[in-house]
Amino acid sequence: MGAEGCFGGIDIGGTKIYAIVTDREGAILASAKKKSKAHQGFETVMERAVSCLKEACDEADVKTGKLAAVGVGAPSPILPDGTAVNAPNMKWFHVPLVPTLHKALGVPVFAENDCNAGALGEYALGAGRGCRSLVGFFVGTGLGGGMVFDGELLRGANLMAAELGHVIVHVGGRRCGCGHNGCLEAYASKTGMARRLAWETLHQGRETMLTELCDGDFASIKSSALREAYRAGDELAVETLHEMADYLGVGVANTITSLGPEVVVLGGGVFEALGEDLLGRVRDAAAAHTHPPDSFADTRILLASLADDAVALGAMVYARAGAEGPDNG
Amino acid sequence: MGAEGCFGGIDIGGTKIYAIVTDREGAILASAKKKSKAHQGFETVMERAVSCLKEACDEADVKTGKLAAVGVGAPSPILPDGTAVNAPNMKWFHVPLVPTLHKALGVPVFAENDCNAGALGEYALGAGRGCRSLVGFFVGTGLGGGMVFDGELLRGANLMAAELGHVIVHVGGRRCGCGHNGCLEAYASKTGMARRLAWETLHQGRETMLTELCDGDFASIKSSALREAYRAGDELAVETLHEMADYLGVGVANTITSLGPEVVVLGGGVFEALGEDLLGRVRDAAAAHTHPPDSFADTRILLASLADDAVALGAMVYARAGAEGPDNG
Repeated sequence: MGAEGCFGGIDIGGTKIYAIVTDREGAILASAKKKSKAHQGFETVMERAVSCLKEACDEADVKTGKLAAVGVGAPSPILPDGTAVNAPNMKWFHVPLVPTLHKALGVPVFAENDCNAGALGEYALGAGRGCRSLVGFFVGTGLGGGMVFDGELLRGANLMAAELGHVIVHVGGRRCGCGHNGCLEAYASKTGMARRLAWETLHQGRETMLTELCDGDFASIKSSALREAYRAGDELAVETLHEMADYLGVGVANTITSLGPEVVVLGGGVFEALGEDLLGRVRDAAAAHTHPPDSFADTRILLASLADDAVALGAMVYARAGAEGPDNG
Repeated sequence: MGAEGCFGGIDIGGTKIYAIVTDREGAILASAKKKSKAHQGFETVMERAVSCLKEACDEADVKTGKLAAVGVGAPSPILPDGTAVNAPNMKWFHVPLVPTLHKALGVPVFAENDCNAGALGEYALGAGRGCRSLVGFFVGTGLGGGMVFDGELLRGANLMAAELGHVIVHVGGRRCGCGHNGCLEAYASKTGMARRLAWETLHQGRETMLTELCDGDFASIKSSALREAYRAGDELAVETLHEMADYLGVGVANTITSLGPEVVVLGGGVFEALGEDLLGRVRDAAAAHTHPPDSFADTRILLASLADDAVALGAMVYARAGAEGPDNG
């Protein structure tokens, strides 16, 4: 296949880098994975991202320099000039993300916040395919959000919008890592659940098999451990995951009440592990809190379908739109 | 002035109808006001709306049948065919709002939810003039919202979005009139404040000059009474209005965190009466709850500037866009 019609997509995260090469329609021709080694600094991550993409290109028999464009998803707000503003878990502060990759790759590069990219991926190629408006909730260590209306990401005047994990749903409620109280993320994320688990076990003397599954370190709990304990019927695990799902349902209801998207997508590690188990509960909680109640029926609440490919594919879609102009995206 | 370039705007509310005639730019040439007499039924309200607009036309020396278009704002979701779906305080349920007015007036008629119209009015002709995205909070008996992005109202797939009063900000919190708990409206509206005042006076034995100012009926309290008690330093009135402002600030923060609009406008009876007194407090609460904190600076929080004209003017702007096509709006 001629590389002219091919695109690259790179998902840069705190622990790993994932690169794909696709055709124009987003079919994945090859992929590659590397550790990020973020602790070694921005330059190292950039070198590893470039070599990860080259590896995928090599696998797909596509010359990197012939890619039509490369899209990058990274855990930071991105300015129009391609600067990544602030990625706490990468220790990035105002780093030249797009210029660096553009210089190394010699092809057009477009970058987007990873949750925005994930939402765009699900919108264009995943669970939301064919819909006109989509809001994504991605539940992992934190809770990320992304919103797409008529094919456009909603970034806000501050370019940092769609921070759906930090919408306050419980004034005076549980402390969130951001310093506020009662953010959705304080309940509907692994970090939020870890906080509850620590409280229940240390201060209430409750027992759970999760303690052993995560070696007593709830902050590093894996979604697979949550699934194991949930499916074994572990009482505290079930309670904690149900609370998570109920709060997420309130967040989904608030989205329907205020924005009425056609599709809400639930993704991220927790929903990849436990999506089928929890979807019904999230839907019930959302139905019980949407106003007016009638309006609930007009939004479909779906599990994400692209799993680990969502960010890289969304970045590719974003790059394709950027390379081909706004009318062809 | 030739009527060809003139537009009509009608604000239909539970207690009164307000009609204006404007030139193409939205300058008001004349206005008229009537009681709605909603208890006499839909047909009566329609007749009174028509005669109210005719009165304004007569005053402006414009023939009603020569208006380029008429816009109507009403307290209901509006379907694309001009049906008003549900207006509890008018006792309307699926009434043919646009067809009825179109038949009586013989000119193009366009209808929009009143809070949406108010937001559009402030966006095009009021406090938000020149901005690209605006979210309006209108605090009166209830709490209404409206959102405009790039000149377009956000209606959602359910056509009922922007119900910002029913976004849940306090899970398990104060009961709202809609039946849910912890809606923003349960705190940031006259109904919400009345609930607190009743509780504090009846069950906690507290005293306030508001009891006398509203003849003991907090549910019917006027914004002017709230202003009088607030400015007199009445302790319970101050506490209640501050709580209202603090919660509204959380609602504003959530809007900035999730949508990042350029402008947030605060309007409605309570802010017409007490806007200058409370604006600073709302801003402070919003700043304290926005994430990331930096993004707060990109949104201007302003008082509405069109007062009682906002809905009628917004309806006129909506009708102008409808009559002239989407590219001329």
